[in-house]
Amino acid sequence: MSLESESLELHKKLRGKISISARARIKSVRDLSLLYTPGVAEPCRAIASGKVSAYDVTIKNNSVAIVTDGTRVLGLGDIGPEAALPVMEGKALIMKEFANIDAFPICLNTKDPEKIIETVKNIEPVFGAINLEDIETPKVFDIEERLIEELSIPVFHDDQHGTAMVVLAGLINALKITKKKKNEIKLAVNGAGSAGHAIAKLLIAYGINNITVFDRQGAICSGRPNLESHKSKIAEITNKEKYSGPITNFENTDVIISATAPGALPQETIRKMRKPSIVFALANPISEISLEESKQLGISVFGTGRSDYPNQLNNSVCFPGFLRALLDLRIKKITEKMKIAASEGIAKLVSDTELKKGKIIPDTFDKRLVKNIVNEVKKAIDQ
Amino acid sequence: MSLESESLELHKKLRGKISISARARIKSVRDLSLLYTPGVAEPCRAIASGKVSAYDVTIKNNSVAIVTDGTRVLGLGDIGPEAALPVMEGKALIMKEFANIDAFPICLNTKDPEKIIETVKNIEPVFGAINLEDIETPKVFDIEERLIEELSIPVFHDDQHGTAMVVLAGLINALKITKKKKNEIKLAVNGAGSAGHAIAKLLIAYGINNITVFDRQGAICSGRPNLESHKSKIAEITNKEKYSGPITNFENTDVIISATAPGALPQETIRKMRKPSIVFALANPISEISLEESKQLGISVFGTGRSDYPNQLNNSVCFPGFLRALLDLRIKKITEKMKIAASEGIAKLVSDTELKKGKIIPDTFDKRLVKNIVNEVKKAIDQ
Repeated sequence: MSLESESLELHKKLRGKISISARARIKSVRDLSLLYTPGVAEPCRAIASGKVSAYDVTIKNNSVAIVTDGTRVLGLGDIGPEAALPVMEGKALIMKEFANIDAFPICLNTKDPEKIIETVKNIEPVFGAINLEDIETPKVFDIEERLIEELSIPVFHDDQHGTAMVVLAGLINALKITKKKKNEIKLAVNGAGSAGHAIAKLLIAYGINNITVFDRQGAICSGRPNLESHKSKIAEITNKEKYSGPITNFENTDVIISATAPGALPQETIRKMRKPSIVFALANPISEISLEESKQLGISVFGTGRSDYPNQLNNSVCFPGFLRALLDLRIKKITEKMKIAASEGIAKLVSDTELKKGKIIPDTFDKRLVKNIVNEVKKAIDQ
Repeated sequence: MSLESESLELHKKLRGKISISARARIKSVRDLSLLYTPGVAEPCRAIASGKVSAYDVTIKNNSVAIVTDGTRVLGLGDIGPEAALPVMEGKALIMKEFANIDAFPICLNTKDPEKIIETVKNIEPVFGAINLEDIETPKVFDIEERLIEELSIPVFHDDQHGTAMVVLAGLINALKITKKKKNEIKLAVNGAGSAGHAIAKLLIAYGINNITVFDRQGAICSGRPNLESHKSKIAEITNKEKYSGPITNFENTDVIISATAPGALPQETIRKMRKPSIVFALANPISEISLEESKQLGISVFGTGRSDYPNQLNNSVCFPGFLRALLDLRIKKITEKMKIAASEGIAKLVSDTELKKGKIIPDTFDKRLVKNIVNEVKKAIDQ
């Protein structure tokens, strides 16, 4: 039986990968009176009067809404909110298993950005954080920006920032191995969707100043006709060399990070890289370049999203711990500094003795990940 | 320590009465591949193509949204969505403990009926049923009506229909004891809020045809000036005698059902009842009439919402089983017939040998309740 068929059968058997659990038992009239009426009136009154906060006496201190409209699910595209639910449940399951977070899927019956924003604002009271998931670009950028501005809980978009943090974590270690310096390298980001966009911004914040971002039409540079607004912003902060050609002619890069699709990263560009070269090919489930090809092309440090290759740059390494940090540290707005701290927290888990070309990122199941990310983010805030 | 203080302390200790549980463990890369990417793409595709439904492979078959705007919470009034959360979590806890339902609280940051309707429509995909809770009247009537019309999952308003079903269950047994017939009795409903409104409608559907409903201004009858729209509807279907006075002068009733507040049910009216009299005084946590007073007034069968009195007419007797029925029987629209079946299912659990003036309703913890309600509702549908 194929992995796909086996997964479908497992989903049919489970009929829901998460469930609600009681954290207290109701066995007597007294239990009912304490946990429900009339006793429950007291915590209600205490919240209403400001004597305690909802964080002190409800699930809000540990709850995350996983919000999607089902428009960009995995590589499947716009499959709708119900078909997106297995992914959102999977995400909730990972948050529970890895970081003991109470996450609930909110799959929306609307694709209208204004309605998505309004719905999330309306359901805010129950949640300690919002995780946006699999919403198509470019509208997700506006949705994220507006929600960050208008909500009093943190808003996290894993497709952007989770990916960017894992990439940065891997890159920190890849630079260490290749003995390259962040302020001296030339770096190309291939793909200007959620991931490419956020990767470029985070790497700039980290101190990598020579970055050029490419989409299907070539380099994103200011002055290029008909640039969408989020790409104009990228153009402003990247591409110092004002390169305006295709990626095939782009030369002497130290690092290429590709978040596109199989076939969308030309081998020519890789051949023109400065050695030792670092390439992250993040397309999922099939990476842009195979492991075999990476060897033929002489790539020095090669990372992908695949679990069957070395250096799996998997978001699961980061988002459980980062959301744990958002909740535990009661963070209201996420900053670049926090994300960099999380990346450093991940990178550090590969010790100098373990570190090698095929081992730049800790294992997804590394038990230290969550705590380490929380600690590093905490230190960054306290500074 | 008072019950109130003890409840607050318990809530501080628990910090959430419900949590999310994993229904499958993630211990290996293979688990991740089956429960999340890449395997999860297959159930997603299967739903998108219509090969399976979300009910077959996700939590949707067992999930309920408990929706409130926090405008009418217990007797506390409009305390807002965050302060309402302990009640909603309590309700979710009861649904889990009594009927193994996965219910999640949705406390809304808006009081606007249109926005409430739109938000619930937007979050529909994840849920198998909607439970409206503690939303003020009269707006809740319109919200309920619109959602019933516009959603493809059932919409249940416990403050109305849960209360009505429990009242009917108690009344079926009270009539049995007092040897009165449903089509011969004269019945007064005191209070025209959510509960009073729904009680009147359900009792009519059950076959009690002489019902008069009272609000603070007296009997609701057609022709009364400035009647709100939901009260006009009540006027149309009740008050055959065209009584237009205050409840104090209302005579010869066999049954009074009061869903108001302490002090709002005049003793004069009770003294004018036809013996043996049946009075349900549902105000919570303090009933309109105390047990002591009920004896002094010569009430034959007396029921309240209180757990320290006999005949506790508690919604917890009904809503877990009724929601279980909605989910298990994949019901799209709730009918009066289903509600009557549920009431009969509850009433039957008090056997003829147990039945007495102080025992008209089964215990909240009666393990047979859920199954019995589901069976009776199923029979009503199959007929």
